[in-house]
Amino acid sequence: MLAEIITIGDEILIGQIVDTNSAWMAQQLNLIGIKVKQVSSISDDADHIVEALQLAKKRAKVILITGGLGPTKDDITKFTLARYFNMGFRRDQETLAHIEGIFQRGNRPMIELNRQQADVPDGCIVIKNKNGTAPCMWFESEGNIIVSMPGVPFEMKYLMEEEILPRLKNAFKLPFIVHKTILTANIGESFLATEIALIENSLPAHIKLAYLPKLGQVRLRLSAIGEEEQSLKQEVDGFAQQIVEKVRQYVVVEDDIELEKAVLNLMEAANLTLSTAESCTGGYIAHLITKHPGSSKVYQGGAVVYSNDLKESVLGVSSETLRQFGAVSEETVREMAQGALDHFKTDYAVSVSGIAGPGGELPNKPVGTVWIAVAHKAGVVSKGFKFGNKRIQNIERSASAALMMIINELKRNTV
Amino acid sequence: MLAEIITIGDEILIGQIVDTNSAWMAQQLNLIGIKVKQVSSISDDADHIVEALQLAKKRAKVILITGGLGPTKDDITKFTLARYFNMGFRRDQETLAHIEGIFQRGNRPMIELNRQQADVPDGCIVIKNKNGTAPCMWFESEGNIIVSMPGVPFEMKYLMEEEILPRLKNAFKLPFIVHKTILTANIGESFLATEIALIENSLPAHIKLAYLPKLGQVRLRLSAIGEEEQSLKQEVDGFAQQIVEKVRQYVVVEDDIELEKAVLNLMEAANLTLSTAESCTGGYIAHLITKHPGSSKVYQGGAVVYSNDLKESVLGVSSETLRQFGAVSEETVREMAQGALDHFKTDYAVSVSGIAGPGGELPNKPVGTVWIAVAHKAGVVSKGFKFGNKRIQNIERSASAALMMIINELKRNTV
Repeated sequence: MLAEIITIGDEILIGQIVDTNSAWMAQQLNLIGIKVKQVSSISDDADHIVEALQLAKKRAKVILITGGLGPTKDDITKFTLARYFNMGFRRDQETLAHIEGIFQRGNRPMIELNRQQADVPDGCIVIKNKNGTAPCMWFESEGNIIVSMPGVPFEMKYLMEEEILPRLKNAFKLPFIVHKTILTANIGESFLATEIALIENSLPAHIKLAYLPKLGQVRLRLSAIGEEEQSLKQEVDGFAQQIVEKVRQYVVVEDDIELEKAVLNLMEAANLTLSTAESCTGGYIAHLITKHPGSSKVYQGGAVVYSNDLKESVLGVSSETLRQFGAVSEETVREMAQGALDHFKTDYAVSVSGIAGPGGELPNKPVGTVWIAVAHKAGVVSKGFKFGNKRIQNIERSASAALMMIINELKRNTV
Repeated sequence: MLAEIITIGDEILIGQIVDTNSAWMAQQLNLIGIKVKQVSSISDDADHIVEALQLAKKRAKVILITGGLGPTKDDITKFTLARYFNMGFRRDQETLAHIEGIFQRGNRPMIELNRQQADVPDGCIVIKNKNGTAPCMWFESEGNIIVSMPGVPFEMKYLMEEEILPRLKNAFKLPFIVHKTILTANIGESFLATEIALIENSLPAHIKLAYLPKLGQVRLRLSAIGEEEQSLKQEVDGFAQQIVEKVRQYVVVEDDIELEKAVLNLMEAANLTLSTAESCTGGYIAHLITKHPGSSKVYQGGAVVYSNDLKESVLGVSSETLRQFGAVSEETVREMAQGALDHFKTDYAVSVSGIAGPGGELPNKPVGTVWIAVAHKAGVVSKGFKFGNKRIQNIERSASAALMMIINELKRNTV
């Protein structure tokens, strides 16, 4: 079963927002055995919407459309769909009551533009959007299912989870798609490919292997499609085990999770706590960790010490160390980690200090110079890095390297 | 002048990665007067690539393709393009030397798969990819320019900035596109539309107005297309001024910048410093701020105090307050802000404590309950919020609300 996603709105095409909806929708569709054939982002233009819809209908049975449902003039999705399906409009009373309720509860004045959001093409099924004023519209036409949803992420997500996915599961007998991901680090993509070439060549046609490199990591993803979930899983697990055995020393985790989640899982299992002491990463490591529900079982907190004063007062780095070696140095970063361990009373502490750029270059310390330390009872390990000259990337790579160092220490200390 | 972006790779279609490249590329293209007509994400499938290319050629003159250039078997972009353009392959010696250099400097073994990355379709212009091993390929065919780039963001960005954009500017006489954004807050989209309806209706055909709502903010974007940059700018600025005068009390900043950047600009201009004390936002506010180059002029640092122990030991929140009112309370968040102000010695401090969810619900404090305080010399202001039940969203909305509170205080204190 194939689906396509069409996102409507100039904001994506001028780059004002990043389309995070489509990735999430694709994940959810995959989980119920629907493959996404194409994602198309197009403008609020009636002819373009119709063209995209016609092309998508040729390639896929299910078409999910997001965006262009706001009350203002630039949003034309609803009118274009009505014209395309040759439908008139009716005011949906249930939607109207829902919109009126939202405005009443918010104590906001309601105008005709808001009421017009309850006008829907008369041949569609209206699905209530609990989280917003624009209703979701479900069309069935010539064997296709076309669904129009708002582009606001939390409205779309609610509608997908509660309404669209269950309805799609009912509408089709779906094949199973099984994915299995192995996260590797410290090995290049080509080298990895050579190491596992024999296994890759032995894969049957219904199982594919993909290499997804990112910041010193390569994710290996096995994807299998078939009719019977249990045997498919066994088959994929079998190949995954072959791969893990072949490149075991590079395997971080046999799961499709983020690095920081791997850290949290390992530490929670060992009943260990963590704190952070961040300079150049500026809270990014803390954010990555605390994104995850339940992180408070492991993560106690940390400091963002941008200024030298705070490195001293919050973490107890000695002014002599800062004076002699500088804020970006092995000596400072080790004291930061030890300081976090002591002050925040955790089993592990990680610290980062570096020059993220574009400013801040020092003699012998170009932009991209980063020091990282991990402290725990048994001592402190530290490592220097030379990343590139892009700020955001340096922040991301530093965080990634810091998390990898924690994992390496955890593995070393538990073996 | 129209362009299209085609991203190739299953990882976007199964939702394993979010396509951040396209938004960035669209921004850059807009700046040189090229509008993006469509962004299409398709799979590593030869027929699909050819179909997408043929359709894109009908709609746009410039087609930028990213992805599918890795050394492994699943990457087929290069071979598909060669077949499409009816070209043979040649090994590009300059590219080969470049790849060999990368492997030598990294002290990594090189295999035939790596050398094959230097094989290019014999009718394309090869553009050196300084940041990686896959070369960029520029094709000209039947009036179209088709460029194939790696999908790795920092390789693509370097190639765009240094090579592709300058070459596109040379290749075409481009019209100017001028955007002007006004960031508003505390006013709904429909209400805003009614307020400025007369101005919107008076816009000439070559100027468009878009409403971009996000987390309690609405960005108003005026876009104008024309031949003469200066007059276009004046025209857009004129309409922007009319809008600002009409809804002045809701205008945060007359610029297309993020909220935290507005905070940094206001504070830097007034020579003020800032610190953060975060519980449920877990470092996200610090990260938003420190993403920006030069943030260290304003931002000194802060604490992520996930545990109650750290709220006491790092920020000096009294154990009595925590016991009596709880960690998520107006009293605690005020002491957190005051503690950050005192301990981190800054002019302003912002604090957040809340229940991001999904766990952690308390009697009378459902998931989504958040308290925020801003402290400065003249005192502490605090405010309670009830957001939703989604963790990431609660983190984002809390950060957004906290930044808005800082802006409101800054404006109040400087008027």
